[in-house]
Amino acid sequence: MSLIVQKYGGTSVGNPERIRSVANRVAEWHRQGHRVVAVVSAMSGVTDSLLKLAREVCAEPAEREMDVLLATGEQTTISLLAMALHSIGVPAVSLTGAQAGIVTDGKHTKAKIANITPGQVKKHLDSGEVVIVAGFQGQTLEGRITTLGRGGSDLTAIAIAAAIKAEVCQIYTDVDGVYTADPRIVPNATKIQEISYDEMLEMAGAGSKVMQARSVEFAKKFNVKFEVRSSFNNNPGTIVKEENQSMEQVVVRGVSVEKNQAKVTISGVPDQPGIAAKLFQTIAEAGVNVDMIVQNVSQSGETDVTFTLHKDDVDKANKIAASISELSSAKSVTVKEGIAKLSVVGIGMRSHGGVASSLFTALSGQGINIQMISTSEIKITVVIDENRSAEAARAVHDQFGLNVVNSGH
Amino acid sequence: MSLIVQKYGGTSVGNPERIRSVANRVAEWHRQGHRVVAVVSAMSGVTDSLLKLAREVCAEPAEREMDVLLATGEQTTISLLAMALHSIGVPAVSLTGAQAGIVTDGKHTKAKIANITPGQVKKHLDSGEVVIVAGFQGQTLEGRITTLGRGGSDLTAIAIAAAIKAEVCQIYTDVDGVYTADPRIVPNATKIQEISYDEMLEMAGAGSKVMQARSVEFAKKFNVKFEVRSSFNNNPGTIVKEENQSMEQVVVRGVSVEKNQAKVTISGVPDQPGIAAKLFQTIAEAGVNVDMIVQNVSQSGETDVTFTLHKDDVDKANKIAASISELSSAKSVTVKEGIAKLSVVGIGMRSHGGVASSLFTALSGQGINIQMISTSEIKITVVIDENRSAEAARAVHDQFGLNVVNSGH
Repeated sequence: MSLIVQKYGGTSVGNPERIRSVANRVAEWHRQGHRVVAVVSAMSGVTDSLLKLAREVCAEPAEREMDVLLATGEQTTISLLAMALHSIGVPAVSLTGAQAGIVTDGKHTKAKIANITPGQVKKHLDSGEVVIVAGFQGQTLEGRITTLGRGGSDLTAIAIAAAIKAEVCQIYTDVDGVYTADPRIVPNATKIQEISYDEMLEMAGAGSKVMQARSVEFAKKFNVKFEVRSSFNNNPGTIVKEENQSMEQVVVRGVSVEKNQAKVTISGVPDQPGIAAKLFQTIAEAGVNVDMIVQNVSQSGETDVTFTLHKDDVDKANKIAASISELSSAKSVTVKEGIAKLSVVGIGMRSHGGVASSLFTALSGQGINIQMISTSEIKITVVIDENRSAEAARAVHDQFGLNVVNSGH
Repeated sequence: MSLIVQKYGGTSVGNPERIRSVANRVAEWHRQGHRVVAVVSAMSGVTDSLLKLAREVCAEPAEREMDVLLATGEQTTISLLAMALHSIGVPAVSLTGAQAGIVTDGKHTKAKIANITPGQVKKHLDSGEVVIVAGFQGQTLEGRITTLGRGGSDLTAIAIAAAIKAEVCQIYTDVDGVYTADPRIVPNATKIQEISYDEMLEMAGAGSKVMQARSVEFAKKFNVKFEVRSSFNNNPGTIVKEENQSMEQVVVRGVSVEKNQAKVTISGVPDQPGIAAKLFQTIAEAGVNVDMIVQNVSQSGETDVTFTLHKDDVDKANKIAASISELSSAKSVTVKEGIAKLSVVGIGMRSHGGVASSLFTALSGQGINIQMISTSEIKITVVIDENRSAEAARAVHDQFGLNVVNSGH
């Protein structure tokens, strides 16, 4: 008899047949005696159809009205899932984001959850019903409909789990957990049984796109234990929770690779205070998202600054190269594509030395050159040739012994 | 500078092009300096698609969830119309039924409006915006989403017009007003310029299906002047309002014909108190909607009772014929199809005599037999052979001189 929040994404509820399948899954937990809140997304394809309709009436739809429009997507799913549960004899009731007490700020299309007043959710749970909540949406204190932006349904699920003190929040998706590496690149990658919030954040940030960082951050902030698992099988997934001592026994939790990167190097920058600030302000104003930044210690009164960015931003970077050069009185600005970032992540790094040298050893064993290095407390990232990133990932994965069941203990 | 409520039905907003066309119409009134509230229905076809989805997940969907599902239809339209107005430079804002303050009772799928708190509507009107309200929907005091049933969007429009004291409520539809008769039957039928609530009610009840009776009753109760007009042209429509003395100058406002009727005659019923009550209780319990009831004065201790019903209910009527006969100790029960009801309506009848005899004269002039007669204060209805109903309507229409412009003055 535990209290569980489940979240089903757009693919899981993509058509009436799948909605009935989700209903069976929810019913199973309900019949086992669990109290269940199911948070659902819009059926896959629905949001795109609505966006198309919007563009047919207005070139640049106002965000307030986009939210009113898009919120109908989840409202449709909640009612259908409630009906599907009724048809198999399970008491269920649907609630929109507003009805579930999701109060947000007024930033339409990317609102932040400000507060949750889960009175209705609790009331219906107490009367033995499964409660189905529309993900991705909320309302402002003044009663305007808002949506939470990308990954919003995950956020709804985790926020409700926090508000009602659920034992676990199950995120049902089309992968059955978080792996030590992308199994398409590293065939002997294994599913991680338990991972800490910080490790999950670093894995997510480094390209394991299971969940948006802000949902993980929210879970961390309110200490919500959640599980990433598949809606197409019954395998246990990956539990994401507060770190504990046993987790630190594992030095590296996983390896991730992010392709499609580029790097910009500004050579011969005068080593004066304020230059970097001006430089990155110019870059930010041009709408370029900078990722890694590396600057070497100056020896000659000049320094080199290198940063990475997504290759889609290379055109913008090239355009501002001249002004960067002028602004920073640099000797040259060069842009290089065809690189990838490879990261190893693990909270065990804090207490275990030698991770960096193991990583470098694995790469040099394959004759792979390291172009940049950046480290944080629980992550080491290197920039390498994109063409060699797959073999690099396999070598690093082997080096840290990740091809055995990763229990987190 | 007047305050106007407009209502656009599903056909008027049936696709993005038509929504843009409605936006142009609304914009025109806005630019003339009027303050406009536009109440809209779901795009035609959307409700059917939603019903189909519901049936695919559940054989008998719960009404509470049907309301959550169906309410998405109007929510989609309001946002799209707001966007279409923005794209032509008109400030506009959408409100769901709940946001517009439509409070209803808890009778899902056929809720009644209990109260309107139009604070948001007024606030946005005051800031110069066109306010677009989702018709057909509201919420209970506890915050459950409800829908108002057939004709619900008309009701929303008239209720809001009452609440904000609008000068007029324009009901845009696919006909351009109320006619003295159905122009498909009576080619020289003319559009009525003004008609009283009671006349409109009797015309509606007698088969002129422009509006549901309850919307007209609501308008009458709160004295809301409304106009039935076309969303496909700019012709003035028919004004429906409180009766005035000049209206009484016109004896007959219009003629209506209702086909597909049947009548049931119970012969030789003992003329005792309580028999009719038992009889019609049995019929009501069988789910048969009885319309006209005629009973002749008894001469011999026995009487005949005849009532009409829609021919779709004939099977039910036949099934209960035996029990009717037994219950009422009647000699025989006969069911006859192939009849039609023809009505003449006009508040002038109250002060003018001779209407019945004029009606009978017109019919006998065509050799049409009258099978039943029923009268109310402002209506006379006769039952005739269905095959002759069109020529009867034309003869009666001519008899009362309705083929001249019906000004209401």
